[in-house]
Amino acid sequence: MVKITIIGYGNVAQHLIHAFQQQSDVVIEQVYSRNYEDGNRIDSSLNFTSNWDDLVPTDLFIIAVSDDAIAEVSLHFPLKNQLVVHTSGSVSLEQISNHNRRGVFYPLQTFTKGKNVDFSQIPICIETEFSADLEILKKLAQVISEKTHIINSQQRRALHVAAVYVNNFVNHLYQIGNEICIENQIPFSILQSLIKETASKIETLSPVEAQTGPAKRNDQQTIESHLDFLEPNKMQRNIYKLLTESIQSNGKEL
Amino acid sequence: MVKITIIGYGNVAQHLIHAFQQQSDVVIEQVYSRNYEDGNRIDSSLNFTSNWDDLVPTDLFIIAVSDDAIAEVSLHFPLKNQLVVHTSGSVSLEQISNHNRRGVFYPLQTFTKGKNVDFSQIPICIETEFSADLEILKKLAQVISEKTHIINSQQRRALHVAAVYVNNFVNHLYQIGNEICIENQIPFSILQSLIKETASKIETLSPVEAQTGPAKRNDQQTIESHLDFLEPNKMQRNIYKLLTESIQSNGKEL
Repeated sequence: MVKITIIGYGNVAQHLIHAFQQQSDVVIEQVYSRNYEDGNRIDSSLNFTSNWDDLVPTDLFIIAVSDDAIAEVSLHFPLKNQLVVHTSGSVSLEQISNHNRRGVFYPLQTFTKGKNVDFSQIPICIETEFSADLEILKKLAQVISEKTHIINSQQRRALHVAAVYVNNFVNHLYQIGNEICIENQIPFSILQSLIKETASKIETLSPVEAQTGPAKRNDQQTIESHLDFLEPNKMQRNIYKLLTESIQSNGKEL
Repeated sequence: MVKITIIGYGNVAQHLIHAFQQQSDVVIEQVYSRNYEDGNRIDSSLNFTSNWDDLVPTDLFIIAVSDDAIAEVSLHFPLKNQLVVHTSGSVSLEQISNHNRRGVFYPLQTFTKGKNVDFSQIPICIETEFSADLEILKKLAQVISEKTHIINSQQRRALHVAAVYVNNFVNHLYQIGNEICIENQIPFSILQSLIKETASKIETLSPVEAQTGPAKRNDQQTIESHLDFLEPNKMQRNIYKLLTESIQSNGKEL
């Protein structure tokens, strides 16, 4: 049995709460939220407070707030010598006030409001200041996920950068594909099967092995024709040129 | 019953043959290949030839060769007034010799050697010079796929450019993510769940709605920290900067 307290009631907090509520091994003792009335309305089974002084000691406090609020929230936190973790990929462990035992509980996933995710498949990256605390985080992570990884702050920073490429930037390329479809009266859904296969291909092949296309096979005629096509949109054209160049320079290094 | 002839025995040709062989409504009359002995060794149930003069008329000839060989192959093709199509996203219908009735049969997917794909979910984009021929292509496409689209040459060109973004370029971003993982002793598999969710999110949300991350929320502190991190790799850093800029300029237009 792990007793925990959630600090914050945004997107990540709500997804975590939902996952923990499915588990009999975890008790959510309290939820701290400035707008606790909103929370109360959504889930009256939770014990909300908006008063820092109401908080009682538990096994673990999870600060699930926006990255730039973590340091400030941890300064407001009134208790001492508790295990306090944040859930961010890009914030160092040191941003948490050193009045407490610090740690990180980072679920590596993109969370959409209102769309439940299968936590069992989400990697949880954990890190603690003191090795004894690692066992608590490991236990909690394993309750909701099959994939727990001990990742130090330097690795987590790298992982967050990598995640920006494979999530944020990939999604932006989907958006460009969508824009091109709209401009040419083509349903974007035509591309869905290709998008899925592209994502699933790299489960069995490395991305280098999976690479295909005009840049990879150095098909200059097609590249020129595509750049002509993109002439009216400088940004799309610059992205096409740079990624083509990157794929091609890659080939040379191999 | 549709009688067809396949010209070429590369990656796309073999995937098409495999799909047609499952269907009793389609007969593959002949397969033309310069290296027909290789083909014979792989599939002795097919009727291979490497002699143009052996070809007999059928309902449809599918030229499934590399983009830059289509025009030349269609000039070698000895019969007249047959329905001859190619399978390319980027080659115009006019590249086929005008001694025949021309068309396009373009399966929008990335094919991996040795990995069977579910053709029923692959969009087939068809186009013909003469409307009567459209029925033959429609019939054939519907035998193997649930998704048939009539796409003209201009749309197909746009679709091919869009496919380069959502397939080739997306895969290259996976590769960068992989490289960052390797450099920091992180298993790339940690990112698989995120990659899958990113691809599946846009089945219910538009890419603009699905966009998250430091660029989208204008988190300059995280962006600067990531650019610092990427300092040793100029190409990765340039890609990060350009895609961040593109996401941010987007926000302004909305």
